[in-house]
Order: sequence, then C-alpha cells, then structure tokens
Amino acid sequence: MRSVPTTWPVGSRKAVTPTIFDAHDHQFDAPTVIRTKRDGGVLSDAAIDWVIDAYTNGRIADSQMSALLMAIFLRGMTGHEIARWTAAMVASGERMDFTDLRRDGKPLALVDKHSTGGVGDKITIPLVPVVMACGGAVPQAAGRGLGHTGGTLDKLEAIPGFTAEISKDQIRQQLCDMGAAIFAAGELAPADRKIYALRDVTGTTESLPLIASSVMSKKIAEGARALVLDTKVGSGAFLKTEAESRELAETMVALGTEHGLITRALLTDMNRPLGRTVGNAVEVQESLDVLAGGGPPDVVELTLALAAEMLDAAGLDGRDPAQTLRDGSAMDCFRRLVTAQGGDLSQPLPVGAHTETITAPRNGTMGDIDAMAVGLTVWRLGAGRAAPGERVQAGAGLRIHRRPGEPVAAGEVLFTLYTDTPERFTGAIAEMDGAWSVGDTAPDIGPLIIDRIAGGREEQS
Amino acid sequence: MRSVPTTWPVGSRKAVTPTIFDAHDHQFDAPTVIRTKRDGGVLSDAAIDWVIDAYTNGRIADSQMSALLMAIFLRGMTGHEIARWTAAMVASGERMDFTDLRRDGKPLALVDKHSTGGVGDKITIPLVPVVMACGGAVPQAAGRGLGHTGGTLDKLEAIPGFTAEISKDQIRQQLCDMGAAIFAAGELAPADRKIYALRDVTGTTESLPLIASSVMSKKIAEGARALVLDTKVGSGAFLKTEAESRELAETMVALGTEHGLITRALLTDMNRPLGRTVGNAVEVQESLDVLAGGGPPDVVELTLALAAEMLDAAGLDGRDPAQTLRDGSAMDCFRRLVTAQGGDLSQPLPVGAHTETITAPRNGTMGDIDAMAVGLTVWRLGAGRAAPGERVQAGAGLRIHRRPGEPVAAGEVLFTLYTDTPERFTGAIAEMDGAWSVGDTAPDIGPLIIDRIAGGREEQS
Repeated sequence: MRSVPTTWPVGSRKAVTPTIFDAHDHQFDAPTVIRTKRDGGVLSDAAIDWVIDAYTNGRIADSQMSALLMAIFLRGMTGHEIARWTAAMVASGERMDFTDLRRDGKPLALVDKHSTGGVGDKITIPLVPVVMACGGAVPQAAGRGLGHTGGTLDKLEAIPGFTAEISKDQIRQQLCDMGAAIFAAGELAPADRKIYALRDVTGTTESLPLIASSVMSKKIAEGARALVLDTKVGSGAFLKTEAESRELAETMVALGTEHGLITRALLTDMNRPLGRTVGNAVEVQESLDVLAGGGPPDVVELTLALAAEMLDAAGLDGRDPAQTLRDGSAMDCFRRLVTAQGGDLSQPLPVGAHTETITAPRNGTMGDIDAMAVGLTVWRLGAGRAAPGERVQAGAGLRIHRRPGEPVAAGEVLFTLYTDTPERFTGAIAEMDGAWSVGDTAPDIGPLIIDRIAGGREEQS
Repeated sequence: MRSVPTTWPVGSRKAVTPTIFDAHDHQFDAPTVIRTKRDGGVLSDAAIDWVIDAYTNGRIADSQMSALLMAIFLRGMTGHEIARWTAAMVASGERMDFTDLRRDGKPLALVDKHSTGGVGDKITIPLVPVVMACGGAVPQAAGRGLGHTGGTLDKLEAIPGFTAEISKDQIRQQLCDMGAAIFAAGELAPADRKIYALRDVTGTTESLPLIASSVMSKKIAEGARALVLDTKVGSGAFLKTEAESRELAETMVALGTEHGLITRALLTDMNRPLGRTVGNAVEVQESLDVLAGGGPPDVVELTLALAAEMLDAAGLDGRDPAQTLRDGSAMDCFRRLVTAQGGDLSQPLPVGAHTETITAPRNGTMGDIDAMAVGLTVWRLGAGRAAPGERVQAGAGLRIHRRPGEPVAAGEVLFTLYTDTPERFTGAIAEMDGAWSVGDTAPDIGPLIIDRIAGGREEQS
C-alpha cells in the first residue's frame, strides 16, 4: 500500500482547484510544510523559499506562519535549514552594495556591529564614532527596542532632530564623507520584519534558528563586508545559558561567513546592566561621557574591545581606538554624524518630568543587579513599547548610582527612575523588588568579555 | 535573585497600559500562556477559561491561538487540562436541554452517536432511524465533511429539499413527535467552531487533546443524555494507531461521563472504506438499501452494533434493532424525519453527470483498498471542500464494485467515479494509484469492531 498524507490539507488554498495538490506537482501548501516541521522533518530548500516568499506576499496567513514558527521553536532546524531560511529572508528585499564607493581612491573599509540585545547596551553609540575615527565605514541598520531590551534607534532619537529615515543616496554620501550612516532597517529583509512582529506576540522569540536568521538576514542585506557580533549571555539576554549563546554566536558567524562577510563574535556578560544608565536620553548622555574620555569602565571596555575586533576584521589594524576617546576625534565624528542626520547636540537632552528614587536600607556593599528586572522596569517607565509602532518616552529611564561591589550607606540613593507619566512608577518600582541587594561582601562577578568566536575560513586567509 | 519572565510580552496587548502585566495581577496575556505550554507546563483552569473566552470574543488573534494549538499538539495536555478546555468550549455557547420533553408522559430516551470520521461512513443515516424505531430520541448535531472524511450533513443535503437549518422549536417538536432531529452544530460550542477552522489550515488537526475536546464540546452541548462514540482506527482515521485511538476513546468517554452523559465507545476498523459507496448521494442510496433490509454486510453490522449500544445506554434494552430493518419500521422513521426537514425522497437522488471507471488488470481476488486514498479521491471528485463554506457536489462519489476478498475477472469494472466536473478525473484517478490491488489470495482482514470502551461510573449504576 502506498504512503498517503496523514491528513488532508483542506482549506489551505482558497479558490484554487484541487489539481494544485496533485502528488506529482511541485507546488507547496502551508499545512503540508507545517506538518513536516511539526513531525520533526527537515524542510527542503524549495519549501523554505516558498514559505518565505508566500508569507512576505500574503499568500500564507499569519496563523499558518505562527504555527510553523512554534513547530520550528520546538523541533529546531538543521544548520542547512537555518542558512536557507536566512538566505530566503535576505532575498525577500534588497541587498545593499557599497563596494563601488571610494574614499581617497580606495574602497571603503565597510564594517558593522550587532548586539543580540541587552540592558543598558548603548555600545553602538560610542562605538560607531570610534570606528569612524579609525578609518572604518559603518553602514548600521539599527533597530528599535524589543521586549526588555532597548533599541539604538529609540536612544538616538532622544537627540532633538535626529532621524534614521535617510535616503539611500544620503547613506552612500555619509559613508564616503564621514564613514558612517545609522538607518532604520526599513526595506531590508521585509520577510524578517513581518516574521519578527509575529514572533513578538506568539511566544516564539527565544529560538536559536529564528534569532540567528533574523539578525543575519538584516546584517547580510545592509552591505557591510565585515561584521562583529556582540552575543549576550545571562539573565538579560534572550537565550539564558552560555552554551546556547555560544551556539547562537557560532551559527551567526557561520551564516555571515557563508554570505561573504568576515564575521566574528564576542560572548559578553549580560547578567547585569551595562554602565550606570538604562533608558533612552540617559544612555545617550552616558555615551557622550565615554566619547569625552570618561564614562563607566565596563562601557569603555566593551566599546574598545568591539572596536578592536571591527578594525581587525576590516583590515584596519594599527589604529588605537582608545586614543580616539582621549584625543576627542571620536567625539568629533559623533557630532558630524548626528548633525548629518538632523540631530542638534547643542540642545539639552530630554529628562523625564518626574523622578522617584530607591534608597539603601542599610550600610554595606552593593550586590548584583539583575539585568532582566532593570530592563522590565525601564520598559514600564515608558522607554519601550506596549504595542508595535507606539512612541517611546525619550526621557524615561533609570540611573544606577551604586554599581555591584561599590560601598553603600544607609539611606543613600541607589537608583533614580525617570518618566513623564508618574502613574507608571508603582509597577516599575515593584519590578525592582528582589532585583538587587545590599550585603557585606562584593558579589562574585566574572569577566565582561567571556570569549571570542571567529569563522574558520576568513581566519586562514 | 528573583525569577523573571524569560521574555517580555511586548505587543501582546494593544492600547492597554503596562499595569495589566503587574506580577500581582491575575490577568492573563496570550504570549505568557503560549510560553507556558510551549515549555511543557500545565495551563491553569483560569488560564484555559481566559484563552477560550478571549479567543471566542476576538481578544486573542488567530496567530496567537495557532501558536498555542501547535504547542498543545507537540507538548500535549493532562487529562485535567483537556477536561477544562472542553468545559470552557461548552460554556462558550448554549448547552441545549431537552430533559423537560415528554412522550406518552415519560421523559425522552435522549441518546446520540458520533464518529471520529471515516471514509464511506454513512452509518448515522441508517442508525438514527433504527434508534427512532426502537423508541430512542436522537438530538444529532451533525457535521460537514472534513479533510478526507465525508460529513453527514453534506450527504443528507443530497436529498432534494433536505435542510439541517431548523429552529430550536422544531428540534424539540421532532424529538417529541418522531424521536430525532438532525441539525447543524451552529451555535453550539462556538469556540470549537472557530478553533476547528484554524486547526484545519495550521496542521494541528490530528491531536488527541484537540480532537477529544472538539468532539465532546459539541456533543455535551447538544443535549443528549447518553452518547456512543465510534472511534476509528487505521489509515482512514485521523489518529493512525490503535493505541492512540484507544486513548482518544477513553479520554472522550471520561469527558462525557464527567459532564453527566452515559458515554461508551466502540473502536472500529477504518483501514478500508465502509460499504460499497463513498461520496454524498451514493451513500444516501446505500443507506436506503440498508433501511430496506439489504446493503453491504459491514454497514449493517456496524449500524446494528452502534444501535445496540445506544439503546442499552439509553435504557431501552429489549428492542431488537435488526427487526426494524426487516419490518420496514426504520425506513418509515427515516421517511418521516426527512420529510419533516424538507426532504423529498420521491425525487431521484443526484448522480454525477460524468463517470469514469477503473478496471481489473487480471483475474484474481480483490486485495485490500486503502481508506485514505479513497477519501482523497472522492474529495478530488468534488464531494468535499477545498475551502470553508464551499459547495460540495451532491452527485460526486465512488462506487466500489469489488470489495476486498471478492473474485475479480480481468477487464471488469472495479470502481466507478462520479463527478459533475470531468477535469477532476485526472487527479482523482491518480489518487487511486497503488491504493488497491488484485492478487491470488484474499487479504487478511481483522474484525470490524475491535473493542468496546465504557465509563466506569455509569456501568456500576
């Protein structure tokens, strides 16, 4: 007896004749693809290409894609499936190409960085100008806040006048003139944009294949030639264990390498927030402190480590990124970049109209601070979104006055919370319950930079 | 450090303030419920009640429900979760109650039957009048074709004029006057109607918890006091193995018992089609043959076995269902029922305008016939739907001239296919490839009725 389908895909295709489902026909239908993954099978290249194209163009319903995403979440994907899924998402839109651009007659050293998402992770803001000052050219397709993590675009838009909605011509011009452009992913990988919005509301975000393909489809499409990934590990990361984060980093490095990008990753600690600020304008201010040669040591350390990787990957070794912070050249680059994109740094940065504080209950030493809780607190204060497209508050955020291990006196302010909408304080302050402590000894904190992962092929070249 | 959510349910609630997500708040949100099941957790009663109500009333999107359905498919549900899910679906609409009805001063013996879906499964059509003739009262909420399986309503609507769109008053009147009403499930368990449509297109049909809750929510709501389930086993069933079908039957019997129904199940063979006809009008004709005292032995056997169970469950033992086929009383009941619902049996039943045949390649003995393939063939001929709400062809179907084990002469007709749209023949005939054979010996075929499953509580009463 022959093998027959386990169920009948009725209703999967509206207003088509049954002949489309002939067994000898190479067409696909969504229920059959969903069932293949549901039952632990491997999707063919053609099936993946069809799914991404059909979903991007509205021929697969959201309900069908979300069932498939949940099946992928629970059944996983092979490396080959992830690669094809990523390639199909890249192909769903335009892939930018800046290889024709020249500065002083030479091709640009096109290099970018991406973080898998953290709390207080403003690193892109000081990092891009450091790399500019060292001769790199950064085409940065930046994102908005997602879940408990902030987004670089939301932060930069706290600068009065700044816009990431710039034309392709302007991106090219800025890359040649000053070595960077920060723009909204917009038309890059539209399949990812649509799938991402769905994952956000269907409990299918924290999946290695789906994270890796989402990040890399946008980064492959944005036109960099080299890419450094900051892969987060810990409570504030989307994947919680070091093993998962390591596998994610290795998967993304392999995807980048396959698409001709020199790709490396750092594994970095995200158990506690980076720096002393979390929010929008407050993180821009801290970034300006770093660019002025100051700022929290962890933010400076990670900025310089990522800059060194980017310069190396772009073949710009020999430049000292730390020098650009000391001599003001990175600050100059940042001012040029912001001005080119409409921003006015001469105006004051916004600050939430209302503040609340959390104070120390006793003398002692500040314990660890949970990154996820702080991320949720700042989200509640209005720095993030409750629904897609919502406006965020530029002035919402949190200031950490005592970092883990610092001495604390009873009654002194440990955290200041900012918002324009004071009714948010109750929920936000409750979110901080149990997320920090004051003890007698400094908490045991591991290194900020845990490991470095590089692709095999490019390392040998 | 406290436990924090693994991701942040951004976007799950549109236009609500973040306070709805306060940890001390007993409200739910869809992503959190989805993640609970996704990660192998058990949904609380309150979460299930919330999901069913919110989805029925449009506060959970199709995409979110389908992600949850896939998580249920892959993670399963506890018996308690299935029971609560079923109860919540019953509560999403009206539960009919006919216990006030009397005939000759006595309460009606309200009993119904449900099949989990088969090929050539016209049993309801002769069965209901047999039970009527034996004194039962059958409130039958019948369904339409689903996937490769035909639906009783689609078949009965092949009778000119017949309608299942009858009022509640008419249902009550028919139950009193003649002992049966066959009606569309309509407003019963509206949550199930909506979820069923979603399962059909998202590859989440063949799930034990979802099948059991779907069947039982409608049957609990339809107002019978006793219920006999025909649970199919084999290639033409939704669940393929006997173990799965047995577990499904046991689950459904337990659900019915919990809701106060005397519930029993037969496990019956669905590896090959029932009888000699599959389709709409052709199955009505075969049912009339059975009611006239003839018809294929397997259809008669299953009709009488289910009738005996129904009569026993309804406390009507002592009546001989076989006698009602011999003496014409079941046929009289069927004519009364059809006439009451607008049908005219004096008109000829429709027959597909075009026919094709499949003939025997050699002399020998007919081998087994695959139920799934025949179901798909008849679907392709137009007896089923390609999209919800589509019209089916009353005259489309297939006639089996040689049943498994019957002698076959080279060149004689084994199958006749009927349709109004001859372009469907190519795909339909291809579907039959490899689904049957002619050999030298009769195939080894097990019993039609495999087992009987009864609830513990009612058996002791």
